[in-house]
Amino acid sequence: MDASECRYCQDTVDWAEKVADLSASTLYLTKDQSNKGRCILAVKGHHGEPFQLPDQEWAAFSADLRRAAKALNSAFKPDKINYGAYGDTYPHFHFHIVPKYRGGKSWGGPFDMNLAPQRTVPDAEFESIIAEIKKYL
Amino acid sequence: MDASECRYCQDTVDWAEKVADLSASTLYLTKDQSNKGRCILAVKGHHGEPFQLPDQEWAAFSADLRRAAKALNSAFKPDKINYGAYGDTYPHFHFHIVPKYRGGKSWGGPFDMNLAPQRTVPDAEFESIIAEIKKYL
Repeated sequence: MDASECRYCQDTVDWAEKVADLSASTLYLTKDQSNKGRCILAVKGHHGEPFQLPDQEWAAFSADLRRAAKALNSAFKPDKINYGAYGDTYPHFHFHIVPKYRGGKSWGGPFDMNLAPQRTVPDAEFESIIAEIKKYL
Repeated sequence: MDASECRYCQDTVDWAEKVADLSASTLYLTKDQSNKGRCILAVKGHHGEPFQLPDQEWAAFSADLRRAAKALNSAFKPDKINYGAYGDTYPHFHFHIVPKYRGGKSWGGPFDMNLAPQRTVPDAEFESIIAEIKKYL
């Protein structure tokens, strides 16, 4: 898949909504909110691996990842945060950032990768989650 | 779990063997080699989240992650690499770095988290995999 077919590049992601443009990445809130605050952080360019990004861009992306996780932690006080980048068939580097809660979904193991909406929330609640994250970014 | 019970801190990891000390982390090769070159990269201090590391340490760890992935890519030419940090019940930050191969184990989805040896290899082969990674670090 090249950039012309990539929904991150074409700004046509429909499984998540943009929260903010960060230094070297875009932060999205996924429609699935089984884990409250679940996000995706995607690099700005169409690169599949960390070493395909220039040094400085990878450094900026990594700082963005830390910043996003810190904001989620401040906003929702999860018991742990999970980070996963897979993309075998979607080579635009992005991390799933998934707040985990003791006794909540997938606690104690990797988060569930199924992004088909599993627990959507009403629009007003979704927007309030975005607002809460932005407050701490 | 505090540092006194943590196998990364106590240097008693038994599910992997040390490959190298990097700038802010230790790189291990997991005994499970279902995915050839599967590694773990653990931060040096006992911290559970990126934002619990000082800025500079996180930056150094992120550079180590890129460096390790680049070495695995050069050594084994995987079709993609996966990166996962979970640790809900093991709060010493570490990434699983898992080379993926088209048609191979877990291709097209998240890698299998089960670290119980699934496909161990003879000692000589295991050591040659370590040597190959070191060549490119």
